[in-house]
Amino acid sequence: MSNSRTPSATPSATPSAASPVGREPVERRIDVSAGLRTGPLGDLSDFPQWFAEHARRAYTRVRRVPLDGLEGWVTDPDTGDLRHHTGQFFTVHGLRVSNPGAPVPEWSQPIIDQPEIGILGILAAPIDGVLHLLMQAKVEPGNANGLQLSPTVQATRSNYTQVHRGRAVPYLSHFLDIHSRPGVLADVRQSEQGSWFNRKRNRNVVIELPEPVEAIDGFRWLTLGQVHELLGREDTVNMDARTVLSCLPFTGPAGPADGDGFRSALRRSGDPSARSLHSTAEILGWLTERRTGSDLTTRRIPLAKVAGWNRTPERMSHDEDAFFNVIGVRVEAAGREVGGWSQPMIEPVGRGVIAFLVRRIDGVLHVLAHARTEPGFTDVVELGPTVQCVTDSYAHLPPGTLPPFLDEVLGASAERIRFDNALSEEGGRFHHALNRYLIVEASDDVPSDHPAYRWLTLHQLSGLLKHSHYVNIQARSLIACLHSLYSG
Amino acid sequence: MSNSRTPSATPSATPSAASPVGREPVERRIDVSAGLRTGPLGDLSDFPQWFAEHARRAYTRVRRVPLDGLEGWVTDPDTGDLRHHTGQFFTVHGLRVSNPGAPVPEWSQPIIDQPEIGILGILAAPIDGVLHLLMQAKVEPGNANGLQLSPTVQATRSNYTQVHRGRAVPYLSHFLDIHSRPGVLADVRQSEQGSWFNRKRNRNVVIELPEPVEAIDGFRWLTLGQVHELLGREDTVNMDARTVLSCLPFTGPAGPADGDGFRSALRRSGDPSARSLHSTAEILGWLTERRTGSDLTTRRIPLAKVAGWNRTPERMSHDEDAFFNVIGVRVEAAGREVGGWSQPMIEPVGRGVIAFLVRRIDGVLHVLAHARTEPGFTDVVELGPTVQCVTDSYAHLPPGTLPPFLDEVLGASAERIRFDNALSEEGGRFHHALNRYLIVEASDDVPSDHPAYRWLTLHQLSGLLKHSHYVNIQARSLIACLHSLYSG
Repeated sequence: MSNSRTPSATPSATPSAASPVGREPVERRIDVSAGLRTGPLGDLSDFPQWFAEHARRAYTRVRRVPLDGLEGWVTDPDTGDLRHHTGQFFTVHGLRVSNPGAPVPEWSQPIIDQPEIGILGILAAPIDGVLHLLMQAKVEPGNANGLQLSPTVQATRSNYTQVHRGRAVPYLSHFLDIHSRPGVLADVRQSEQGSWFNRKRNRNVVIELPEPVEAIDGFRWLTLGQVHELLGREDTVNMDARTVLSCLPFTGPAGPADGDGFRSALRRSGDPSARSLHSTAEILGWLTERRTGSDLTTRRIPLAKVAGWNRTPERMSHDEDAFFNVIGVRVEAAGREVGGWSQPMIEPVGRGVIAFLVRRIDGVLHVLAHARTEPGFTDVVELGPTVQCVTDSYAHLPPGTLPPFLDEVLGASAERIRFDNALSEEGGRFHHALNRYLIVEASDDVPSDHPAYRWLTLHQLSGLLKHSHYVNIQARSLIACLHSLYSG
Repeated sequence: MSNSRTPSATPSATPSAASPVGREPVERRIDVSAGLRTGPLGDLSDFPQWFAEHARRAYTRVRRVPLDGLEGWVTDPDTGDLRHHTGQFFTVHGLRVSNPGAPVPEWSQPIIDQPEIGILGILAAPIDGVLHLLMQAKVEPGNANGLQLSPTVQATRSNYTQVHRGRAVPYLSHFLDIHSRPGVLADVRQSEQGSWFNRKRNRNVVIELPEPVEAIDGFRWLTLGQVHELLGREDTVNMDARTVLSCLPFTGPAGPADGDGFRSALRRSGDPSARSLHSTAEILGWLTERRTGSDLTTRRIPLAKVAGWNRTPERMSHDEDAFFNVIGVRVEAAGREVGGWSQPMIEPVGRGVIAFLVRRIDGVLHVLAHARTEPGFTDVVELGPTVQCVTDSYAHLPPGTLPPFLDEVLGASAERIRFDNALSEEGGRFHHALNRYLIVEASDDVPSDHPAYRWLTLHQLSGLLKHSHYVNIQARSLIACLHSLYSG
């Protein structure tokens, strides 16, 4: 048992494995759950009805309102920054970015500043011996479809401290002071959108309870296989759930993966003993080089000084109508902590393409990861998808600036496309931020000697996900999608 | 061979191990070298003479000069910040720190800002089959003793770009564009003093060449065992060498460590398969909790606005003469890139105590690491020594604020003290910054349930040292000292 947190004066050493004595290792419990699309509680046939019923009760009305008339929000007279009158929640200010050598070496933009670190938490527990996850049908104002499947808890630090004086967040107490108890399957800060957030991180937490707790209205225990099935449905599993899922210690089935097909290669990719093109030491060294080689610098500037953007009483938008708009919404909600509120949101222009190219290398699936700079990253560079872009935003740029590998992804024949679904970014800050998520097998003639890209196995990515600031949120979503292809 | 950096269209998977085919793993080559205090090139009997001869030729004269008259440096008329007239090198500005709940919840201080990431690099190569390190006898203006044993290369980014128009840095070319070549044993950014530097990081790099290069004047090939022997001599091995040494993939001897003595426990501690009190997953989760639980915030302020400090034309110092002074020096040097220059330096007040308490837990040595906040850390909290303080600086604070475990360290009987030596911090920025470094076996009645402390094995610390921002520079020095106790 390695759960002793208060060693006595002469403590005993304990095994390093995280599993209690006499139980399967956590990786096996996760894998068994991932294999079950029909579990002890049944299948998903009633899911649409459950979702629809909850949607009726958790009625939310979202109205666009002018940015200048947002109740509770002020435009700072000196800077033009948008902030809540209490100083809480978040601020929209300007950022000046210098990235010498990049296609766009210099720009400024609005960005969201939300320095508090919230919790994205999933409760897990065995039901009839099978690991289940407690998931929530949650409304967010930016959701295109109203409801999405969410983690057990999405709590900002303001939630704990009750800044908005709303109702308590259900199940939050399970995620406080967790390291005095066993059962922590994951607990790691991970970044969020570095183009829209300035150094935002959330804690991604999974806690395994010895017994399930009651699922209150709007919550439901699901196997991991069922969550994976829902991940394949359009715009159903939210971003917060996807990032937490990516941090699970998921390795896939134990034992040899037979066969030379895609799924066998995928299963081998999660196996820590599988061969990888580059050692993890090499990957870490390459990341050190990319990080120290980048000259990207950012500086906070007043929102009123952001060049190339236009602010009207209604909204703030780019002069070329590219990238995103900053808009205002008024929300009237039932089933939330607060009955109604107003807030600014980011509304992306156009639908993004977010894709991993994958390839079987000696029978082990590798993904082509991109060492990306984003202005809001805490640590300069993170590994992102092979392709992450909004093609519309390139319309005003010189020809030849389209990102590498975009043609390969968009031109792929159907049999090479292993995952293709519309998923959205966080509905609490982003309005109808739908992106097309793709996993595409690379053709043989894809060049792969680009210095900013490397082929990694899923096991290597999982190892990096035990630490902060290595894998960006879009890549984490794609990792959750790859896991969903192990079974089913 | 895992050195392919430019996979072809159909690349082959390769083993993940970093060692070329047909050679001992790098950990073994390092261990063999650590065991040799007499190597193919002899022993250290001529070392004092070599050092002394080089000291005569590398003559340096350091004179204290008033801060206000530093050639090439200006005091900004608006802020009082000290900066070089070119905007290069570094700046001394003010930092306001808020750390609610700490013994001192609020303070401001001067701090050095040097955002560029330099290289601290050691070249390694086999000589008669034994791994050797190319070390340098280097003068720095802050060294109390003139010369210290240093890495092959200490280069700021200004060195590459020749900002100070001095001579080229010897061997620097070996450390540029390294990931196109094999032999990278370590390449990781690590933090430096978080109380004196604002978010300073350097790359810690070790490159293994297939053949040794010529050691030019002032350089010498040494076995790791010889470097370890010198680490036990007073103020001989500099901070930059110590931090790079700590990042070597050092595991100690392969095979079982027999016996129940201190050294057997130490050897087991480096073994990745040895039992640890806490799993690494638990340690990472605990660090996430400490990092997200800290309310420490910092804000850059003008140096002229730093409260509690007094600036005269001569220097800047704390009103209680505690912590450190900011002073000016004029340096006249031979054997350096530039013949002479002036610069501000930090001069600590009093000698610090930097110590690890260690304990054998089921036969495996564990060190008691402290999850420390320092205002200049990039990521809030890093693991530091059990004790890291300057006792003099507590004189003006209320009783009861002395750091935990200080009594245990200073009151230890001689047979419990495993390492005790005066070592200094970086002589390029810090003036006579000598600290007492100690490794002390904890007595049985040391309480070890403090929430900010955990017992870790050396192997766990080595694993964390593959990543940035986990282990602070003082703890890294102590890790190098612990490695020096494996043999000899």
